Amino acid sequence: MSASSSFVVALDVGGTSMKGGLVSDSGAVLLSERRPTPREQGPEAVVAAIRDFIGHLAASGDGRPAGVGLAVPGLVSADTALYAANLGWKNVPAGDFTPLDVPILLGHDVRTGGLAESVLGAGRGVPDFLFLPIGTGIAGAMIVHGEPYGGASGWGGEIGHIPVFPDGEQCACGQFGCLETYASAASVGRRYSLRSGQEGVRAEQVVASDDPMAIEVWDEAVEALSLALATYTLLLDPSMIVLGGGLAEAGPALLDPVRTRLVKRLTFRDAPPLRPAALGVDAGMLGAALLGWRAADRPDLGPGWTVDVRAEPLVS
Amino acid sequence: MSASSSFVVALDVGGTSMKGGLVSDSGAVLLSERRPTPREQGPEAVVAAIRDFIGHLAASGDGRPAGVGLAVPGLVSADTALYAANLGWKNVPAGDFTPLDVPILLGHDVRTGGLAESVLGAGRGVPDFLFLPIGTGIAGAMIVHGEPYGGASGWGGEIGHIPVFPDGEQCACGQFGCLETYASAASVGRRYSLRSGQEGVRAEQVVASDDPMAIEVWDEAVEALSLALATYTLLLDPSMIVLGGGLAEAGPALLDPVRTRLVKRLTFRDAPPLRPAALGVDAGMLGAALLGWRAADRPDLGPGWTVDVRAEPLVS
Repeated sequence: MSASSSFVVALDVGGTSMKGGLVSDSGAVLLSERRPTPREQGPEAVVAAIRDFIGHLAASGDGRPAGVGLAVPGLVSADTALYAANLGWKNVPAGDFTPLDVPILLGHDVRTGGLAESVLGAGRGVPDFLFLPIGTGIAGAMIVHGEPYGGASGWGGEIGHIPVFPDGEQCACGQFGCLETYASAASVGRRYSLRSGQEGVRAEQVVASDDPMAIEVWDEAVEALSLALATYTLLLDPSMIVLGGGLAEAGPALLDPVRTRLVKRLTFRDAPPLRPAALGVDAGMLGAALLGWRAADRPDLGPGWTVDVRAEPLVS
Repeated sequence: MSASSSFVVALDVGGTSMKGGLVSDSGAVLLSERRPTPREQGPEAVVAAIRDFIGHLAASGDGRPAGVGLAVPGLVSADTALYAANLGWKNVPAGDFTPLDVPILLGHDVRTGGLAESVLGAGRGVPDFLFLPIGTGIAGAMIVHGEPYGGASGWGGEIGHIPVFPDGEQCACGQFGCLETYASAASVGRRYSLRSGQEGVRAEQVVASDDPMAIEVWDEAVEALSLALATYTLLLDPSMIVLGGGLAEAGPALLDPVRTRLVKRLTFRDAPPLRPAALGVDAGMLGAALLGWRAADRPDLGPGWTVDVRAEPLVS
């Protein structure tokens, strides 16, 4: 192999920003950058911005990249961004995202993060587990037989919208009692603000507060999470549950009470261990790098890499 | 291949009875019989009864069977019945179940039924679906990428014990608000008897009754089922849901209201179609036959078979 194909371009597209990087065949992150996602400029502008970012990243490398990996939200197949409500996409072919004449693979954002946690992070060597990032919203990556599983049509993993409280509050999605409407970082902040009248309180402030209203809101979030994780455990029987996203930064303040409630909910089987995610905000970009190497027909790369990015995020 | 290896022995072990048969390499059911499960005589007696039944079935065939497939409850691997609470088993090796010197494969009872529905029944050609038999209890077979999936350790599919009503009634398992405690055939009968004071009312009578107490009990069962199926759909994104077991005999009286509630629960995605199971009480035995042919190293058999046993059950 020539030196010109010893890295891939990796890009993780979020609703507000895009995290890009160059990753070598030994897992070294040669470069990482962040750009805003120009969502308000419309669907085509976002595609153009991705194309430009990929071109820029590739040009920053030494030679020609071996492949491109791209993580995007919504419904996605390996070669098409089928649908993304928040970006306005419908059936965007992979080729539209790249100016390069190298193989590209697309992946679903959360499942691509789950792939990274599976190959490089908290789930290394664990074939069956749940990766649950808790941020503005909640969606899970179900790792089944060592690979992220998206269901029959790619709509799987919507654990944020399972009805944990059947007669509960209405979610922004229109359904009632969804996990997300109680336990996402955004919901914890919103629900506390509603009760206390204080605007703009962030979830981490609610978690740390000893105000009875804050304790109540956090308690309901923990209860909702433990119900959803009990359900996941009984259905999917995972080896472990990996909690990530902004809310997981709360550490023991999240893990300990959720674990206690989960154990209590289950009577005839053990609860799986709960673990914090290992890759933080870089999971999506690192997963995209793994996709890039798969696109380059090097799916064997990854398991041997040593990645320790938790202490110092690549992209912040 | 000699004529002496043109059939397998298939056995489905339930808590009260065992369904056995001989099934040819073209899917013909050459023989089917039923015997009681001598559960009250203890764990070893059940193993001995299985051994005797398999010997009897094999001797009834023309020559030597190519393999044996055995479906059992509890926690099971391909070569060991690891644990079965209701039969008192712990780590019974496959060899203990058979007097024959031919290959044997064990399978979990519900997942073996799901395998049969997948290869021969309502899920033919559908790689990702849920098979949900509703009987005395409720457990599901999750078909993922064309094969039943039991989770990391084989405890998966316990949809009967997910908490659909978090503050609901206590289940026999000790948990609260389990699907099974509202919607199994046994629970529908029990809950109606409790309210009406009438003893021994069967679920099908409750379904057919216009007594307001019966309507209420059935309504709660339907609500519990629709919540569990909404949760399954959002998590696993199945192509379809196949309802089986005794309660599915209610036909449209079950399928129609569950479908209506499921559709209503889901706002941002479609509900998968609900279908009645195709193989009825024979699913487990037919699945065991497929395992028998896998044991005989003929996993290719099955998909080409034509099985239409619904109108006239093989074993009743």
